[in-house]
Amino acid sequence: MDLDTIAAISTPPGEGAIAIIRLSGDEAIQIADRIFYAKNRLADADSHTIHYGHIKENGEAIEEVMTSVMRAPRTFTREDVVEINCHGGIVAVNRVLQLLLRSGARLAEPGEFTKRAFLNGRIDLSQAEAVMDLIRAKTDRAMGVALAQMDGNLSRLIRNLRQEILDALAQVEVNIDYPEYDDVEEMTQKMLVEKTLLVKASVAQLLETAQQGKILRDGLATAIIGRPNVGKSSLLNQLIQEEKAIVTDIAGTTRDIIEEYVNVRGVPLRLIDTAGIRETEDIVEKIGVERSRKALQDADFILLVLNQNEPLTEEDRALFEAAQNHRYVVVLNKTDLKREIDIAQVQALAGTNPVVETSMLTDGGIIELEEAIKKLFFTGEIDAGDATYVSNTRHIALLHQAASALDAVIEGVEAGMPVDIVQIDMTRAWDLLGEITGDSVQDELLDQLFNQFCLGK
Amino acid sequence: MDLDTIAAISTPPGEGAIAIIRLSGDEAIQIADRIFYAKNRLADADSHTIHYGHIKENGEAIEEVMTSVMRAPRTFTREDVVEINCHGGIVAVNRVLQLLLRSGARLAEPGEFTKRAFLNGRIDLSQAEAVMDLIRAKTDRAMGVALAQMDGNLSRLIRNLRQEILDALAQVEVNIDYPEYDDVEEMTQKMLVEKTLLVKASVAQLLETAQQGKILRDGLATAIIGRPNVGKSSLLNQLIQEEKAIVTDIAGTTRDIIEEYVNVRGVPLRLIDTAGIRETEDIVEKIGVERSRKALQDADFILLVLNQNEPLTEEDRALFEAAQNHRYVVVLNKTDLKREIDIAQVQALAGTNPVVETSMLTDGGIIELEEAIKKLFFTGEIDAGDATYVSNTRHIALLHQAASALDAVIEGVEAGMPVDIVQIDMTRAWDLLGEITGDSVQDELLDQLFNQFCLGK
Repeated sequence: MDLDTIAAISTPPGEGAIAIIRLSGDEAIQIADRIFYAKNRLADADSHTIHYGHIKENGEAIEEVMTSVMRAPRTFTREDVVEINCHGGIVAVNRVLQLLLRSGARLAEPGEFTKRAFLNGRIDLSQAEAVMDLIRAKTDRAMGVALAQMDGNLSRLIRNLRQEILDALAQVEVNIDYPEYDDVEEMTQKMLVEKTLLVKASVAQLLETAQQGKILRDGLATAIIGRPNVGKSSLLNQLIQEEKAIVTDIAGTTRDIIEEYVNVRGVPLRLIDTAGIRETEDIVEKIGVERSRKALQDADFILLVLNQNEPLTEEDRALFEAAQNHRYVVVLNKTDLKREIDIAQVQALAGTNPVVETSMLTDGGIIELEEAIKKLFFTGEIDAGDATYVSNTRHIALLHQAASALDAVIEGVEAGMPVDIVQIDMTRAWDLLGEITGDSVQDELLDQLFNQFCLGK
Repeated sequence: MDLDTIAAISTPPGEGAIAIIRLSGDEAIQIADRIFYAKNRLADADSHTIHYGHIKENGEAIEEVMTSVMRAPRTFTREDVVEINCHGGIVAVNRVLQLLLRSGARLAEPGEFTKRAFLNGRIDLSQAEAVMDLIRAKTDRAMGVALAQMDGNLSRLIRNLRQEILDALAQVEVNIDYPEYDDVEEMTQKMLVEKTLLVKASVAQLLETAQQGKILRDGLATAIIGRPNVGKSSLLNQLIQEEKAIVTDIAGTTRDIIEEYVNVRGVPLRLIDTAGIRETEDIVEKIGVERSRKALQDADFILLVLNQNEPLTEEDRALFEAAQNHRYVVVLNKTDLKREIDIAQVQALAGTNPVVETSMLTDGGIIELEEAIKKLFFTGEIDAGDATYVSNTRHIALLHQAASALDAVIEGVEAGMPVDIVQIDMTRAWDLLGEITGDSVQDELLDQLFNQFCLGK
C-alpha cells in the first residue's frame, strides 16, 4: 500500500510530564532525522531503540527529547514508526509538530494510525473499535469488555457465524447443481432452515448482551433531579467521594462539555448537568423543574431526590410526572430528620421504581442506593471477563439487521419461495456480519468510523 | 544515594492515544519484569531498547504495551528508568499503575522524577524549575524564556556572580591575614565596594527583566468588563479566534478551574471568568457590575468594553471607577454603528489608559487593540531568545533579598564598619544567590518546590 507519512500528538492535551508525537509511514525516520539532532542519525539506528537528542529549528534547539525508532512491520501500524518524547509543554510540543509538518509529514486525521493498523492487516475492524473503547473505558468492567473484543473474541464469534452461513450457501449451490435426487429441494430447505436457526440463535444471544454492554461502554446518562435544598448536591458529592468520579474533558475546549462519571459497582453513571446541580444549590434556584426537564431529555436514568422531612409538594409531583418515561430510583433523603413525607403516596407515585432512604449526613443508604441502581440494569453478576458483550452501537445495529435477514430466509422457505431467492437474504446476513469485523466494508464507512477516534491514535 | 523505586503516570490525565507510566530507581527493571510478559525479560535487555508485550494480572492480560528500558546513568533521573507505553485509557492505565505499586514500586510524589534528576546532579534547581515552566508555557516567548533557563543561562549568570562574591571574600581574607601594608584596610574596603557595586548592577539588571518575565511565564490575569450587550462575548471570541486560545484544565477535576489563555503578540492573557461572560450574555444579565467587581479583584489587566452606539451610562462610569487601580484598555465597540458616545468624556475618564475603537462585525480595530495591550506591558521588542529573563517568583524574591544584602555591604563600608562584619552580609548575598541554582538549599524548600510540579515529572 502506498501511504504518505503522518504525524500527530498522541498524548492527551494538557500539562503533563511527557508528550509524544508519533510519526508513521515510509518516510517517518527520514523526516524525523531532518529535525532531530543527536550523536547518530536515526536512519542508522536499530529498530526498537531510543535516542537522546534535541529538536532544532533554524539551528536553535527548541526541545530536549527522547526519540524511539521502530521499523516495519513490528509496529502498531505495521509501518516505520518514530515517537518523539517531549517534555510535555503545550506550546513546545505544538512547535515540534509544526516543524515535522513543514519537514514532509502530513497531520494525521483522528484515528488514522489505527486505520493504518487495520488497512495493513494488523487488526480487524471490531478490534480497532475496541482500542478506542479501551481508551474510553470508565470502569474495570468496561475495560474487560473492550479487552476481550480487542483480543478478537467478538471477531472469532462473528467469523464462525459467517463460516456457518458460507457452508450453508455452498451446500445450497451443490444441491442446486446436482439435483440427482427427487427430494433435493426439500432437503436443501430443511438444511437451510436448520443452519439459519442456529446462526439466528447466536445472533440473538449476542444481542441480549447489548443493553448491558452498551451501558458498560458508554455509561448510563444519569440526571439527578429534585427541588432546591433536598440534597442533590450532597448526593452528587457522596457518590463522587465514594466511588471516585472520573472527569473527562471530551473535546478539550470549552467547559460546557466536561463529563463526570461515577463508577457504581461496575455501572458507570454519566452524570448530566452536574454544574447545574452545583450552581443551583449554591445560588438561588428559580428554575428547578424547568431545568430538570431539560436534563431529562438526554437521560437514560434518573435519581429523583425528595426531602422526607417535608410533605410532598406539587413540584415533587411534577417531577414524578416528568420522570415517568424513564427508569428511576426515588431517593428519600434526610432520614436523619423527622419523617414528614407520606411514604404510601411516594410509593404509589413511584410504582415499580425502587425507593431508597438515605441520609447524606450519616452516609446512611448509599450502599442500598448503589445496589438498587445495579439491580435496575443488570441481572446477576456483571462478569465482563467471561462473556462476549456487544457494546458498540454500530455492531448492535448490524446484528439487528442480520437477524432480520435471517428471519427473511426462514419466512421465505416457509412461504415456499425458490432456494435461489432465499439465498439472497442469506448472503445479505453474511455481508452484514462481515461489516462488524471489516471483512466487507466500504471506504466511506471506514472514514466515518475512524474519525470518531481521538487524534494521534 | 539510596532511593527507592518510584512510579507514576507521566502523561496528562484524559483520553489520549498513548499513556505512559514511568518507573525510576534501582529496582525499576526488576519490578517491571514482575508484571510485563514478552519474548524476553527486561533484565536481559540492552539499554535504550523497546519491547512489545502484555501486562498481566493473575495470569490475565490487562493491557497490550510497549515497554522501554533505559539504564542509569543515561536517563532523565540518572537512575534505571522503565517507561510503559499503554493504550491510553484512564481505567487501564490506573490498573497497570496499581499493579506496579503492589509489585514493589512506590507512587511518586509530584515532581519526584525531576527532584531525583536534581539530587543525582543531572540538573540544578533553576533548570529543574525551567522544566516545569516549559510544560506550562503558554506562548513561544514564554517557552523561549524557559528553554534558555533550562539550558542553564540563568544558572551560569548566577554562578558567575557568586564567583565574583567569592573572589571578593577571598581577597578580604587575604588582606586581613596579611596586613603587611598600612593602607590594607582602605584598599580592601575600596575593592569590596567596587565588587559589590558590580554584582549589585547585575542583580538589578536581572530584576528589571522580572516584570516582563513573570508576565511571559504566568500570563496577564485579564478581566473583560462592560455592561450587557456591549460585545464582551464577541470580543472574547474574536481574541480566541484570532490567536487560538489555549485552554488548560489545571487540576483536571472540576470545571471551576479551567483557565483560558489568549496569545496576544507574545503576551499571554489569562482570561478571568470567561464562563461568566459567556453565560451572562446568553441569559439575562442582572449582576453585571457586581460580577465585574469580583473579577477585578484577581485581575492584572482589564479590557473595559463600551458600546459607542450609546451615550455613556451611570453603569459605564461605575466600571471606570472600579477599574481605576488597574492598567486597562478601553474598547469602544460597535464602530459599525452610528457614534452616540461622547469621546471626550471617555478620554477624560480613561486618562492615560489607551482607548481603541473596534467593530466585532467587521473585525476592525483588533490589531490596534492587540498592539495597545503589548505596548502597555512591553517596551521595545520582546525577545525571549537573547535576553535572560527572570520569571520565577522564588528567583525574584531571592534576587531582591540578595540586592538588599549587597546594599548592606556598601552601607556598612560607608559607615566605617569593620570588614569582618561587612563580610557577613556579603556571605549572605552569596548564599541567597546559591538558593536560585540550588547550590545552597534546605530539604524542606526542595520538598515544597518539587511539590508544585505535576505528577509523573
